[in-house]
Amino acid sequence: MTAIAILAEGGFSEHDAKTATGVLRYGSDPVVAVIDSTRAGSRVRDHIPGLDSDVPVVAGVDQALALRPTVLLIGIAPAGGKLPDAWRAAIMRSIEAGLDVESGLHDFLGDDPELAAAAANHGVEIRDLRRPPAGLDVPTGRNLTVDAHVIATVGSDCALGKMTVCLELDLEARRRELASAFVPTGQTGIAIAGWGIAVDEVVSDFVAGASERLVLEGRERAGAGAILWIEGQGSISHPAYSGVTLGLLHGSAPHAQILVHEAGRTHLDMPDGPPIAPLPQLIDDYQRMAGYVRPAPVVAVSLKTNPLGDDEARAAIAAATEQTGLPADDPVRYGAGRLLDAVLAARSG
Amino acid sequence: MTAIAILAEGGFSEHDAKTATGVLRYGSDPVVAVIDSTRAGSRVRDHIPGLDSDVPVVAGVDQALALRPTVLLIGIAPAGGKLPDAWRAAIMRSIEAGLDVESGLHDFLGDDPELAAAAANHGVEIRDLRRPPAGLDVPTGRNLTVDAHVIATVGSDCALGKMTVCLELDLEARRRELASAFVPTGQTGIAIAGWGIAVDEVVSDFVAGASERLVLEGRERAGAGAILWIEGQGSISHPAYSGVTLGLLHGSAPHAQILVHEAGRTHLDMPDGPPIAPLPQLIDDYQRMAGYVRPAPVVAVSLKTNPLGDDEARAAIAAATEQTGLPADDPVRYGAGRLLDAVLAARSG
Repeated sequence: MTAIAILAEGGFSEHDAKTATGVLRYGSDPVVAVIDSTRAGSRVRDHIPGLDSDVPVVAGVDQALALRPTVLLIGIAPAGGKLPDAWRAAIMRSIEAGLDVESGLHDFLGDDPELAAAAANHGVEIRDLRRPPAGLDVPTGRNLTVDAHVIATVGSDCALGKMTVCLELDLEARRRELASAFVPTGQTGIAIAGWGIAVDEVVSDFVAGASERLVLEGRERAGAGAILWIEGQGSISHPAYSGVTLGLLHGSAPHAQILVHEAGRTHLDMPDGPPIAPLPQLIDDYQRMAGYVRPAPVVAVSLKTNPLGDDEARAAIAAATEQTGLPADDPVRYGAGRLLDAVLAARSG
Repeated sequence: MTAIAILAEGGFSEHDAKTATGVLRYGSDPVVAVIDSTRAGSRVRDHIPGLDSDVPVVAGVDQALALRPTVLLIGIAPAGGKLPDAWRAAIMRSIEAGLDVESGLHDFLGDDPELAAAAANHGVEIRDLRRPPAGLDVPTGRNLTVDAHVIATVGSDCALGKMTVCLELDLEARRRELASAFVPTGQTGIAIAGWGIAVDEVVSDFVAGASERLVLEGRERAGAGAILWIEGQGSISHPAYSGVTLGLLHGSAPHAQILVHEAGRTHLDMPDGPPIAPLPQLIDDYQRMAGYVRPAPVVAVSLKTNPLGDDEARAAIAAATEQTGLPADDPVRYGAGRLLDAVLAARSG
């Protein structure tokens, strides 16, 4: 049985440890310890708002080993991208203790000669979650015939919590005993679900083909007629990531879309970012672009409201509905029921 | 001085040897021989319509060597993708004779241990034209401030001759003594121009960043205020390649666009391809998408008419103008003057 120790040295907070937080909130395998010497002696609940977990935060790998993990997950990205020496030592110690290692870092740990040799010696696996699978190609067209109901989450910007929206919708659908799967397209989603492809790491010619492959795998995992929630990436309006966004949209060939936005965000998340386009324009453009493959109406707006008070959040949700004519809600704050209802109504309608 | 021998064994025709044809038509370095044992004893003009060249077609590398080449260019893609034994022998023989080797093949020759060792032994270079450069990243925003006039060629489909359109426009601009550069984004363009990045081979996260880098390099090569002709890739409407298309569009941040179409083509170039969208819809969508970065009107339509007779071609061009309200022409058939005029008018207008 899998049991996870998460390395979040020096940065175990919701803001800095996105992968750690995602796996703690949504992962199916148990987490037995978080490693962060700067927070040792506390519990997860002391650091992640709204997550009532008493998983201990410990000082190092040795303390974590006492809790019998089978996997060390790198739960945080290093500042500057380079693996700090302290992390390398913790990873080596984990490998020597027989743990597999999972990493979503841009630099693949499996390509590090020292770590790779140690893993081979100790018979453990290094899984680089961002490493593209072999054999990718352009789409085959099977994305258009697969018997699943594909929902894309598309954004007014990047870094809006599209993954979280998908995870909440998938949970709600399964609560209602619908066949459903979250389809991961980035490293945190892959760490949570245990499968997926980081589509932004794929050679650009194969982004759509990789996305098609994910849809087919989601259908295999969740069964005939399942709802598949495609984790969106970037935005067609964000100049750095729009290629990934459109390749993912066309390769996953959704039947419907949910537009994800953050209440009050006015400019794109980039240096000197331009203003975010009005939601009706974005909805129109996503529908026009998706329509080259299959008509896919935007059926709801998912709004991130967490910096707001309750009254403000409800007002922002009402304003989004007013502006777009679509059902809107914050699925993290108020539950994913209304957004799921909108998806199901559009499906049968 | 560079002198090129082109390997086109078994396939020296306009249809099968796209890179060979492109370099013969538009390359700046002289070609001294084409190697194709099945056509030995003939001349280039016997095989490439409209190219009045007496470069000899020879039976093998040894015959080519008599004409003193410095580079062997692989001018044709092998059926099935695997390097045929006869080609490998020809490449080895060329390396042993001191020639550099240039290849736009998907499988990098420089990664072949036997060829790499031979190249090292003989002090020659293997240049894989599709290999992405090191150090790519997301765009910096310098694409928006560079002092050049950037023109994107965008398509109703893939495989329409966007590269050729750019090359003809660049030639015409330089004939008029305007500062101008062709900006290559695929292997044939790179073989012709001697620089560039195959953007479909880049990790998808960096497509826009690679495109920005190409614009900056084009500006360095052609001077302040130069017109840069960005070789388009795919189409926003083609599900296999749209991610590359949009990443290239946003990364190159054009000031204006030319829509490229083939007269009479009705369906996308793919198995069971859907109908090509009406040109006004494509123009609208390209303008909407480009507009997220910078307003970039489509200022002209470039029409590929070569299968048509002269009357039909002129009628197709008139119909394109009728349909779009834009100047239209076939720059290969009738010269690039009218399209360049449209670009210059929009620039000053």
